[in-house]
Amino acid sequence: MSINPEINLQEFTHPSISQNNGDYWFYERSDSFPGQTFGLKINKILYHTKSPYQDILIFESSNYGNVLVLNGIIQCTERDEFVYQELITHLPIMSHPQPKKVLVIGGGDCGVIRELVKHVRLGTVETIKMIEIDDMVINLSKKYLPQMSKFADDESVEIIIEDGFKFLKDNKEKFDIIITDSSDPEGPAEEFFQVNYFKLLKNSLNDDGIVIMQSSENIWLNLPYIKNLMDKGKTVFSNLEYTQCYMPSYTAGQLGLIIASNKDYDLTKPLRTIEDENKWFKYYSSKIHESSFILPTWADNHLH
Amino acid sequence: MSINPEINLQEFTHPSISQNNGDYWFYERSDSFPGQTFGLKINKILYHTKSPYQDILIFESSNYGNVLVLNGIIQCTERDEFVYQELITHLPIMSHPQPKKVLVIGGGDCGVIRELVKHVRLGTVETIKMIEIDDMVINLSKKYLPQMSKFADDESVEIIIEDGFKFLKDNKEKFDIIITDSSDPEGPAEEFFQVNYFKLLKNSLNDDGIVIMQSSENIWLNLPYIKNLMDKGKTVFSNLEYTQCYMPSYTAGQLGLIIASNKDYDLTKPLRTIEDENKWFKYYSSKIHESSFILPTWADNHLH
Repeated sequence: MSINPEINLQEFTHPSISQNNGDYWFYERSDSFPGQTFGLKINKILYHTKSPYQDILIFESSNYGNVLVLNGIIQCTERDEFVYQELITHLPIMSHPQPKKVLVIGGGDCGVIRELVKHVRLGTVETIKMIEIDDMVINLSKKYLPQMSKFADDESVEIIIEDGFKFLKDNKEKFDIIITDSSDPEGPAEEFFQVNYFKLLKNSLNDDGIVIMQSSENIWLNLPYIKNLMDKGKTVFSNLEYTQCYMPSYTAGQLGLIIASNKDYDLTKPLRTIEDENKWFKYYSSKIHESSFILPTWADNHLH
Repeated sequence: MSINPEINLQEFTHPSISQNNGDYWFYERSDSFPGQTFGLKINKILYHTKSPYQDILIFESSNYGNVLVLNGIIQCTERDEFVYQELITHLPIMSHPQPKKVLVIGGGDCGVIRELVKHVRLGTVETIKMIEIDDMVINLSKKYLPQMSKFADDESVEIIIEDGFKFLKDNKEKFDIIITDSSDPEGPAEEFFQVNYFKLLKNSLNDDGIVIMQSSENIWLNLPYIKNLMDKGKTVFSNLEYTQCYMPSYTAGQLGLIIASNKDYDLTKPLRTIEDENKWFKYYSSKIHESSFILPTWADNHLH
């Protein structure tokens, strides 16, 4: 089912949308985080469809710009997307001495590509390969999230429409950095959160390479799950750390990431520096790099 | 208007409460943060009244424990209250060489007192004086937030029911630390966010004393307001810093604090250390102390 962009909100029904005092609001609810919700006021529905892989909803919000929702979970809003995109990209890139070849698994909104292209311009990254299962997400991002997707066609970028898991199984190429920018495990991304996936990542990684992935959780929502995911990762990578970003539109205002390598980098500190870093980045800085690994006492005790 | 604790939810109406699929939810909405809301599912209403100063609502949530709401804004939930209470208390206490006399303005839920009493037990703080305008908040906290209010009657604590602003005008005593744990400026706390208040704080502070206050905002909601509040504070205090805590139940998952002194401490680092700090604190640590001052690039550029 796909709707006309000019459809009247009153004629549109979606399980995540309901009325409040005559206005229409999107509410993010899930059994993964019962009893709490984050809501955004809707100006208009831009697009809705059920692709072969997921329920895709894009709306213009009153105060957060355009919003991409997959299976009822906010993937990005134009107002705060740079937080996640910058952290998942610049943490591994700035922790590696010479990150030339980068692989992105997922990342259909192309925000990670935008951040990676900065390092192409800076003369560090040479090639970016992105494997996205759902080309509809890429095309919709080009239309409705132009600030995120603006470097999708950069000459350093190659996009392949394929299941990332299958790609890694067949792949013989080696990368310096692999970024897994997936949706949560409830959707098509389920396999990205298993030991076998960490093994596939290792097989496509140079010996001194670095991987990073979103954990789909944060310290408030499911510490045991994070601990378990870290333990899975540690069976494959000797050097593994948990880090978080802080942004309004992710559940409970936070999202955790796992970064790992088999080389003994100190991943919690940048290995390289960039002159005038505050001109290149809106969220990331060498100080944010370090502080993103500092967890509250109770969470730190649980995970370390 | 006060309701019976055993009242049926169906018979209770409140502008912040509405139904979703047969369940009752509290939604935090305000013109201060238009177009977004955080919602919590309600198990039962514990108390509601309009005190002379504010609308007080206390409910048992499904997943965040008991919740105190003043004028429609979440003040604390049992699940995550320790984050704010610990940061606003331990930042100034651990930045001061000998914090013996402490004044708390506001703080009716008594969570700051609970944290301060830890430093009494540790042999640092000697006396705690709290000035709260609304004794109803204290009494309700004793009944419905027992883990927060458990040290309200400690022998180190003196509680005075009075307008904090008026108390400071008449006060001749000097304190080492003054903590302003107020509600937001829309309610009775309006005067706490003006230059005159910073001057009153200074008059009740020893020359080497430290003050801290909640800013009522965070970097996502109103950067110009924070900058303006910092500028007001800087006309009175030569040494002033902005810091943040991160917790699900505060708007957009973050809350900013202003810490200031006329002595040239490095407020961004603890001056003292506590042995086994992770046994005393659930959120705070010397590392969290430092990282709480690290802001994303765009906010740092705006405020510094």
